[in-house]
Amino acid sequence: MLKYLVIPAAVLCATSAYADEGQWQPYQLPQLKSELKRIGIAIPAEKLADLSKHPMSAIVSLGGCSASFVSDAGLVVTNHHCAYGAIQRNSTPEHNYIANGFLAKTRDAELPGGPNTLVYVTDKVENVTSRVLKDITPAMNGKQRSDAVDKAIKSLIAECESDKSYRCSVPAFHRGLEYYRIRQMMIRDVRLVYAPANSLGDFGGDIDNYEWPRHVGDYSFLRAYVGKDGRPADPSPDNVPYKSRDFLVVSAEGLKNGDPVLLAGYPGRTSRYKLPSEIRYARDDAYPAKAGEIQSDLDVIAAATKDSEASAVRYASVVKSLNNVMKKTRGLMDGFARKDIAAIKDVQDAEFRAWYARQPGSKQLLAELDALIAADIALSSEEFGYSVATTGDLLKSASSLYRLAQESAKPDAERELGYQQRDLTFIKARLNRLEQSYVGGVDQARFIAALQRYAKLPKAMHVSGLDALLPSVDAVPALYAQSKLGDTATRLSWVGKDAAAVAASDDAFVKLAVKIDGVSKSLIERRKELDGNLERVIPQYMAAVIAWKKSQGKPVYPDANSTLRVTYGTVSAYSPKDGITKGPFTTIEGIVEKNTGKAPFDAPQNLLDAIKAKRYGKFKDPVLGTVPVDFLTSADTTGGNSGSAVMNKNGELIGLNFDSTYESITKDWYFDRDITRAIHLDIRYMLWVMAEVDHADNLLKEMTIKYPKK
Amino acid sequence: MLKYLVIPAAVLCATSAYADEGQWQPYQLPQLKSELKRIGIAIPAEKLADLSKHPMSAIVSLGGCSASFVSDAGLVVTNHHCAYGAIQRNSTPEHNYIANGFLAKTRDAELPGGPNTLVYVTDKVENVTSRVLKDITPAMNGKQRSDAVDKAIKSLIAECESDKSYRCSVPAFHRGLEYYRIRQMMIRDVRLVYAPANSLGDFGGDIDNYEWPRHVGDYSFLRAYVGKDGRPADPSPDNVPYKSRDFLVVSAEGLKNGDPVLLAGYPGRTSRYKLPSEIRYARDDAYPAKAGEIQSDLDVIAAATKDSEASAVRYASVVKSLNNVMKKTRGLMDGFARKDIAAIKDVQDAEFRAWYARQPGSKQLLAELDALIAADIALSSEEFGYSVATTGDLLKSASSLYRLAQESAKPDAERELGYQQRDLTFIKARLNRLEQSYVGGVDQARFIAALQRYAKLPKAMHVSGLDALLPSVDAVPALYAQSKLGDTATRLSWVGKDAAAVAASDDAFVKLAVKIDGVSKSLIERRKELDGNLERVIPQYMAAVIAWKKSQGKPVYPDANSTLRVTYGTVSAYSPKDGITKGPFTTIEGIVEKNTGKAPFDAPQNLLDAIKAKRYGKFKDPVLGTVPVDFLTSADTTGGNSGSAVMNKNGELIGLNFDSTYESITKDWYFDRDITRAIHLDIRYMLWVMAEVDHADNLLKEMTIKYPKK
Repeated sequence: MLKYLVIPAAVLCATSAYADEGQWQPYQLPQLKSELKRIGIAIPAEKLADLSKHPMSAIVSLGGCSASFVSDAGLVVTNHHCAYGAIQRNSTPEHNYIANGFLAKTRDAELPGGPNTLVYVTDKVENVTSRVLKDITPAMNGKQRSDAVDKAIKSLIAECESDKSYRCSVPAFHRGLEYYRIRQMMIRDVRLVYAPANSLGDFGGDIDNYEWPRHVGDYSFLRAYVGKDGRPADPSPDNVPYKSRDFLVVSAEGLKNGDPVLLAGYPGRTSRYKLPSEIRYARDDAYPAKAGEIQSDLDVIAAATKDSEASAVRYASVVKSLNNVMKKTRGLMDGFARKDIAAIKDVQDAEFRAWYARQPGSKQLLAELDALIAADIALSSEEFGYSVATTGDLLKSASSLYRLAQESAKPDAERELGYQQRDLTFIKARLNRLEQSYVGGVDQARFIAALQRYAKLPKAMHVSGLDALLPSVDAVPALYAQSKLGDTATRLSWVGKDAAAVAASDDAFVKLAVKIDGVSKSLIERRKELDGNLERVIPQYMAAVIAWKKSQGKPVYPDANSTLRVTYGTVSAYSPKDGITKGPFTTIEGIVEKNTGKAPFDAPQNLLDAIKAKRYGKFKDPVLGTVPVDFLTSADTTGGNSGSAVMNKNGELIGLNFDSTYESITKDWYFDRDITRAIHLDIRYMLWVMAEVDHADNLLKEMTIKYPKK
Repeated sequence: MLKYLVIPAAVLCATSAYADEGQWQPYQLPQLKSELKRIGIAIPAEKLADLSKHPMSAIVSLGGCSASFVSDAGLVVTNHHCAYGAIQRNSTPEHNYIANGFLAKTRDAELPGGPNTLVYVTDKVENVTSRVLKDITPAMNGKQRSDAVDKAIKSLIAECESDKSYRCSVPAFHRGLEYYRIRQMMIRDVRLVYAPANSLGDFGGDIDNYEWPRHVGDYSFLRAYVGKDGRPADPSPDNVPYKSRDFLVVSAEGLKNGDPVLLAGYPGRTSRYKLPSEIRYARDDAYPAKAGEIQSDLDVIAAATKDSEASAVRYASVVKSLNNVMKKTRGLMDGFARKDIAAIKDVQDAEFRAWYARQPGSKQLLAELDALIAADIALSSEEFGYSVATTGDLLKSASSLYRLAQESAKPDAERELGYQQRDLTFIKARLNRLEQSYVGGVDQARFIAALQRYAKLPKAMHVSGLDALLPSVDAVPALYAQSKLGDTATRLSWVGKDAAAVAASDDAFVKLAVKIDGVSKSLIERRKELDGNLERVIPQYMAAVIAWKKSQGKPVYPDANSTLRVTYGTVSAYSPKDGITKGPFTTIEGIVEKNTGKAPFDAPQNLLDAIKAKRYGKFKDPVLGTVPVDFLTSADTTGGNSGSAVMNKNGELIGLNFDSTYESITKDWYFDRDITRAIHLDIRYMLWVMAEVDHADNLLKEMTIKYPKK
């Protein structure tokens, strides 16, 4: 995914905490006791807040995805798209597990998930705010403050990661109002147990992405293995299934419109506390510019590959990824056009400021905040301009190599993030992998077109000092002619060279990268200074917002930051436009309706047969009269919540989160309870496929399943 | 509308009468007493059955549309599209009532509706079956039987139409099982009272045709005027408003999901009693062939007009009409693809045949029926082939002129339908009007392409004896060069000439028409013979079906035949596909949502202003929280029901019918209660526009309106 745009990193205006909005830190749940009770959640809030207790102790992270244990022998259920890497890794033309699915009927048959398939079990969360901030002084400038915080965090992590089995992190909440140290046990022998055929697990594919109605069986099973001592171990045939101290009971008893749900997982990033000015910048400038950039780049790639099948294949994944970003960006723009979120925030912001003005003490804070946000927007514009001007894989590779050479000269702990010793494998992999998605002529066309677009960007998006250093469009072909970086071995040969050697190179792209490196570094330094200041001011602002909300009796949840959160909501339909209602359920008959026999609407024949024969088994919903597939709830989710356990009022697993609707895309900025809906797999569909289609009887037996009473 | 296809005219298999299906003759309603009561209709069925009593005595026909009286001074409410002719007729560039709407604030200001704006008040319905069939003998062949029925009907009409104020008709029910003589008072001075702006009354235009969600205010007001003696009179300033002996009370009390409705009007044609074989023919042959024909013709017109704006304008209405037919045909094909109606009818047909086999008496009927239906399908195929081969307006004009000359030689009463003295004005008008939609080069391209398509049709669609008489494609340009029928004066100069003179013409198209006239006549004779036989057999079949249904305690309604019918249903949403629900209501906010400012989505500014200001007045729905616009019910309607009164359980007017959903198009063949929905205007929207937007206070005062209690 290309980083076309850096959204200004500040945090802002108050979002009221009521209804289904909120990605709560588990410890906050007791504050929501009456609300949880009102919607019908039966588990005591105190129990939900305790990570060592059921059901939270069954919730795990896969790093980027969420999951949960569903047996006492380390069996993990998550989304098909979250296990995709593990499935792909084991697939061969002879054993095409992507196309045909995979089922290990015995533990011996389970397949290695590979080094990227990891299970993280959160086991300790401590508030370490005072330790992180202990060396901070008011006199520090932004950069100094930022460095001091980094240093404190590194030491807190080092102290915690005494053992290879644990991975620790110290994320900021409310942009630095609080810091928590989170310790996770990292299980690194994770195996593929069961995945349905892709045409079931990804039915509808990219076409249905962000859409409703949805008919995808987005689930797969993994199993966590540990050493005989019960502790995480490198993959080995001697390892044994992890004895999960807790797991979720799976309920096939079903749910209906209006039922409450709990959802636990690891949401990635939200921006719910932005100032109105930041929303207007995103809506009016940043997203339109980003969409225009992506579309132009897609057009250039299409034109440059149209006469060569081979080139088109090489750029297929680039195009797919750009299209994905495009759909999300268009969804954001459509959402902003549909509802004037900025105006809503204006009202909230004004209310907050009026309240704040009545409080005792200095009133410098908001003026300082506004100035910093304005600076953030201005810097973000330049960062966007920089990303446009440096489109093109050869330039990116060259810049990365030069930066690596410079950072390698420093002690490891002082190097920039991403250029430390631990990152080297990743850098090499990227340089190597470029071979699969690079064609010189196409890259040249993209770079030329990007330079032309950069030249036309508004002045605010031009990077200070950059323009004079960029090549003219006419000079670009010569750059490609005089660079050998298109060759993989050559690219890799630069890794490990020192900065002076790189600087002395006569490779045209390496020379260009050296030339613009100062501008790039200056952007990074300005960002650090600004972020340091934002991290000083925003926590004060958030503290005021929290106090304001507290005065109204409302708790405040922090923006998502890839840490464990709990959200709740109800099964509910929504109206995307006047006169139309979507959801809350789809049914297996809808699969037949959509099935064309052509990917991505090519359901497996055994699935179609079971539907046609109405072999509903124990999974027929009494209201729908058939087996449900997917459903909608008002729970508050975002990217990273893929695979999250959706639980009923008793904490039993009734679904897996996997997406949200197109109209919900703006929820990262503003939770509009009328239309924000998360899309979940109904666990009854999974169980039905396992029972009637894929015959995964061994797993059905392993799980604890509550079936509906007759 | 081009007659591309003659659907086989027989009648068939049993449709069960339950739920909301049924276009009932009013006299049948007492048989449905318990059903009406069950859904909550408060008016006694006996009262509904009496055309002289409220509310049926308030229901009128406009000839092709339905309407109702809403005051005791002849005020009639119907659809905007039903009053369109009257609005158009009075519009000038200076007074553009189409664009701006029209409102007569006083009766003096009401505008003449013109000769085609008529109000028919049904005042007498008699069963005349025995009189129609009195001269029929078993020995008669089809043609003789058909002629004898025609003769009896003509005499029954003549006896009834003693007075110019009345118009009588003797339609067949169940294809001749019963005949009713219907006497209607025909009011011929009808004036335009009020029409909203087209952008409100036709908001969404053709794009929204057959679609939901819908946001159209499809209503207009007319007023019936009569002579001072209270009897219909030619238009005159001396006329006075008709004292409508009955009118509907208008209820603004509203309705909600699940409420019962009654709907009364004049549905045109349905085919609910077709045999499975006829459905398969329509689905597999007739509709695909028709759709292919229309699409090809549209393509030819597009290609032939693409370089000339003037030609494109001339064919705009032809194209619009073809597109309309195309949308309906595609809807039929989609509907047949979605649900296997033939298979459903197979089951019903088999049940009926099993029952019939157990009855005493001769069992020849069904064999005879099946043979006739097969013959009907075969003849329909030829008729379709003929319509393809004779595409092209010059050939059609020539054929019509030659037929007119031949028929004119006979006594008026013996002439073919459509070529009698009373039809002459219409024939001339058509010959004259062709000027507006004819371009020689385009017609030639259409004719050539049609001949090429005809040549490729399956053998069954080739007309016996025709192929050898058709010109070769190469010869067509010479035909156009050697014909003067493209000239309007020339076309009209042939009217009144005798058959010998026409036959002697050296005009190339007249010569072609003369040459193929024998084939055309032979098709017509074969149709008469077949129809006569169908009219003998189908009534026996329908009698058996009715007996079968009666044995199950179920009444049977006849197919629609443009006579007054009553249907009932409930306000209800439907699911067009799994996971999506449509309806039952739209709201005025949806207008803003759809409004683009560009026709047909260019709502009037005063409407948008009223919505924005939330000036809901008395018309705010308590559930929706705003003013409803259109709604869906399960009532059973078809073309001709436009403008039909939709009434609540007390017979008060709560809506106007104006369309049905795309998924309902197959209802002319099979009423699928799950998805068949009629689209109605919510009368509250009309009243709200009258009160808050158009300020039609005089009409609001004239009507009797029940407002919701506070």
